[in-house]
Amino acid sequence: MNVASAATAKVEHGQFPSVDKTHIQTEIIPEIAQWSLTNGLVLASDKATVAKAAPTTVFPTPIPRQSFDQAKALQKPFNQLYAQIANSEWLIKETEQLAKVDPDFTGKLFNLYQKYTAKSKQPTKFGIFRSDYLIEEKTKSVKQVEFNTVSVSFGGLSSKVGDLHSYLNVMGKYDNKGKPFYQAGELHTSESHVFIVRGILNAMNIYQVDLESKKRERDEKIVLFVVEEDELNIYDQKIIEYNLLKIYGIISVRCTFKDIKTQFEYSTDKKRLIHKKTNNEVGVVYFRTGYDVADYSDEAAWETRGFLEESYAIKAPDLSVQLAGTKKIQQLLTKDSILSTYIDDANVKKQLSNSFVKIYPLDDSPEGKEGQKLAIEQPEHYVLKPQREGGGHNVYKKDIPAFLNDLPKEQWNAYILMEIIDTATRKENFIVRDGQLSSEPIISELGIYGTIIFDKDHIANNDYSGSLLRSKLMTSNEGGVVAGFGCIDSMYLY
Amino acid sequence: MNVASAATAKVEHGQFPSVDKTHIQTEIIPEIAQWSLTNGLVLASDKATVAKAAPTTVFPTPIPRQSFDQAKALQKPFNQLYAQIANSEWLIKETEQLAKVDPDFTGKLFNLYQKYTAKSKQPTKFGIFRSDYLIEEKTKSVKQVEFNTVSVSFGGLSSKVGDLHSYLNVMGKYDNKGKPFYQAGELHTSESHVFIVRGILNAMNIYQVDLESKKRERDEKIVLFVVEEDELNIYDQKIIEYNLLKIYGIISVRCTFKDIKTQFEYSTDKKRLIHKKTNNEVGVVYFRTGYDVADYSDEAAWETRGFLEESYAIKAPDLSVQLAGTKKIQQLLTKDSILSTYIDDANVKKQLSNSFVKIYPLDDSPEGKEGQKLAIEQPEHYVLKPQREGGGHNVYKKDIPAFLNDLPKEQWNAYILMEIIDTATRKENFIVRDGQLSSEPIISELGIYGTIIFDKDHIANNDYSGSLLRSKLMTSNEGGVVAGFGCIDSMYLY
Ligand SMILES: Nc1ncnc2c1ncn2[C@@H]1O[C@H](COP(=O)(O)OP(=O)(O)OP(=O)(O)O)[C@@H](O)[C@H]1O
Ligand SMILES: Nc1ncnc2c1ncn2[C@@H]1O[C@H](COP(=O)(O)OP(=O)(O)OP(=O)(O)O)[C@@H](O)[C@H]1O
Ligand SMILES: [Mg+2]
Ligand SMILES: [Mg+2]
Ligand SMILES: [Mg+2]
Ligand SMILES: [Mg+2]
Repeated sequence: MNVASAATAKVEHGQFPSVDKTHIQTEIIPEIAQWSLTNGLVLASDKATVAKAAPTTVFPTPIPRQSFDQAKALQKPFNQLYAQIANSEWLIKETEQLAKVDPDFTGKLFNLYQKYTAKSKQPTKFGIFRSDYLIEEKTKSVKQVEFNTVSVSFGGLSSKVGDLHSYLNVMGKYDNKGKPFYQAGELHTSESHVFIVRGILNAMNIYQVDLESKKRERDEKIVLFVVEEDELNIYDQKIIEYNLLKIYGIISVRCTFKDIKTQFEYSTDKKRLIHKKTNNEVGVVYFRTGYDVADYSDEAAWETRGFLEESYAIKAPDLSVQLAGTKKIQQLLTKDSILSTYIDDANVKKQLSNSFVKIYPLDDSPEGKEGQKLAIEQPEHYVLKPQREGGGHNVYKKDIPAFLNDLPKEQWNAYILMEIIDTATRKENFIVRDGQLSSEPIISELGIYGTIIFDKDHIANNDYSGSLLRSKLMTSNEGGVVAGFGCIDSMYLY
Repeated sequence: MNVASAATAKVEHGQFPSVDKTHIQTEIIPEIAQWSLTNGLVLASDKATVAKAAPTTVFPTPIPRQSFDQAKALQKPFNQLYAQIANSEWLIKETEQLAKVDPDFTGKLFNLYQKYTAKSKQPTKFGIFRSDYLIEEKTKSVKQVEFNTVSVSFGGLSSKVGDLHSYLNVMGKYDNKGKPFYQAGELHTSESHVFIVRGILNAMNIYQVDLESKKRERDEKIVLFVVEEDELNIYDQKIIEYNLLKIYGIISVRCTFKDIKTQFEYSTDKKRLIHKKTNNEVGVVYFRTGYDVADYSDEAAWETRGFLEESYAIKAPDLSVQLAGTKKIQQLLTKDSILSTYIDDANVKKQLSNSFVKIYPLDDSPEGKEGQKLAIEQPEHYVLKPQREGGGHNVYKKDIPAFLNDLPKEQWNAYILMEIIDTATRKENFIVRDGQLSSEPIISELGIYGTIIFDKDHIANNDYSGSLLRSKLMTSNEGGVVAGFGCIDSMYLY
């Protein structure tokens, strides 16, 4: 056996490096921290001048190439589907119903939509989406967990984890003799740190500045990042900001709901959004907050969202696009009768439905009745989800019956009941958080980013925009990376 | 007046942006922290997984282009001068004398030199230097503070500060209306993060691996970084490491004196330095420790230095190069009779001497006697320096007489007395450390990096390798960035 064949034989498809815990502790963990801190793979701390290494895995997680390809292929159809929904009367009708059972959030967003968004003179809509999947263990087919239409995160940091794992591999850290373990092309690095940025560029290019701008000394279009006051995931956002500037020369301004009305004003024509200090015109409003009740700290914050919605800026997303992403809409799309309204191509429809698992409403329809029964009698196969984003709102498995029993029956309809997807657990990979190794098996969730720019009649751009692998402890239901449950991973494709 | 001429008129040569403290606090300080933490412009904290923004200035500091050009032009002659000194018998003679008055450090290094370095089979020597200057206020001529021949730092971080200041400028943060303040080409970014790396590549290319290496499965040359256990400035070093890999595919291994003999061994031929774990051969030993007594924690550490010295690896630097950088040698070079031994070209000699200020020995020579007198009678114009590196060892101005009086007379000769260089203080620029603004005038010190690869008869490479501007509070004598006195700055050339 010659050296070359020995090297090839060494890595079996889908295997992990065979280095022991001591090696991981001494050779890998310090490298992860150092690489992360040098390269901005970081989360904020409670001090503005201090950052900490983001939680990541030790190894990339093996993902069948076919599963990744399947998820990738779904993205443009999904982008288009949700664009059509955002444009639809059906969305308004369904959201109106939902607003009644969920007045505190969906209801408030819907009010704003009617009062402001619908009146904006901007015809262009912009979605920066992420469709999340678990890989069904039996079939290796990807099954959709949810489709996010607002404030999708980790597009910046995701790419860095791919680079980190590639670095560790090239440095020989995955091997006892210091040789690379994975071969070229097996380790995937997400393009999201540039593809999402390209999506924003495309929207900026469509946005037309005031032709009179010269007279008003306004000479730049800028991007407005609407952000939270104390954002632990700020560096993920900064990567997008810096790449906008570095690659395309586009300047961004960050602002919280609280400060927007002080720093921005409408122009008299069309309610263009003007940055008062610089007189620059906002081309794109990019929301990295506003997806959760808690993001609106008071009535003024809701009003400010309305102020932005009504402006001439292109919103990523506006409320029609945001509201297309409710769990309720996701549930309804699993019904063939509804999906068929939007998708003619039988092949595409089949592709999309293949990624769906069973989702029940909990209303008085026959299906809703079945859902209610299953929720109480076989809860261990289900997760209960309200119309919320951002983690921490779901009710899992055996907790469902008690939760529902405590809930007035007329509110059940604000929830959907979703089949638990059976996915692989891995005991050979580990989460590193604050330099500490996890000691339980992990589960990985694949996210595919997509960007779409459209108006009532046209799609200007529809793109795949990179990927994300997040891993969490098997024993934890929620996967929140920043909240402390999960971590950012990357893919070893086999 | 049209717009263009207004914009040009706005920036006067050598002026600072006219933004007020509130603007700095709200618009600039948060951006500095965020940019630094996303881009690895960081120092280590006491936790391995946490980094903090490195101290920097708010603005780039204005530096006359002529001063920078002058310093740059000096670098290759200085590199060559110190290479000749490292090769000289004269160095050995002088160091032998110095060893007697400074047995604890120079003496120990000299012993190692005789016992090990002189026996190494490696003919190639490698210097990564930094010549430091203050700009004489009256003439704008650069005056040399010292010439560092070992473990010069900030080659990595220096480049990042230039990028940071350029970012702030492009983002309009230096202007009340959000426009760029400096014009293209005025802000200088040091090339040290890549030029020092290129220097290491050049040395690696000269290093010849064992022709028998295949038989021993040794197929790579690596760089060995010899480092301190808890290095606060580790990210500066990591930039060099990562760029070696990213740009040239060269792998580096970090190791402390303590661990070197466990992890490395000699080959039987020529004492090649072999990394036991991977069987790789060390082409270059890059010292980022070993310049201070405290870096050698015990006898074993000194022995380990010897072990590395005797090896076949190219040392950056070996002890001859390191010892060429003592303050004593710097003092001797200010004597025309000595400088003339090394430099024939009258023009070059003049250029170099123009950068010298008066430096006195404190020995029994007529000059030494004069030095002794000045030290006691006019101390406010002098700084007293021992044969040490790394800051914290000098005695400044009025502290000199008491210090000398406490010192046995026979030890005075271990010190040199250097004229204080009169340089500009700036009250318009500020140091930002941990998010806090300084409130005193600052002084800036210009460093020019150089790399030279040579043997007894030839110079293989001699290059300018980038720049560094460090600024410190006027009231602080020492400028240590990591120690907490100074910060990293960048140049606005005018
Ligand atoms: N059908 C399912 N099968 C298995 N696990 C699921 C399922 N649905 C959700 N989960 C788990 O619960 C987590 C949270 O669910 P989901 O993403 O729908 O909630 P969310 O509140 O929208 O969170 P976020 O928007 O922050 O991702 C998922 O990341 C996944 O780990
Ligand atoms: N002749 C001088 N005139 C004015 N200031 C000086 C002079 N010499 C030294 N200093 C100040 O003292 C500081 C330390 O001096 P020097 O660099 O010679 O010491 P060192 O111990 O070699 O430090 P390091 O190697 O860490 O830079 C300088 O950075 C400078 O700020
Ligand atoms: Mg989710
Ligand atoms: Mg979600
Ligand atoms: Mg110095
Ligand atoms: Mg020094």
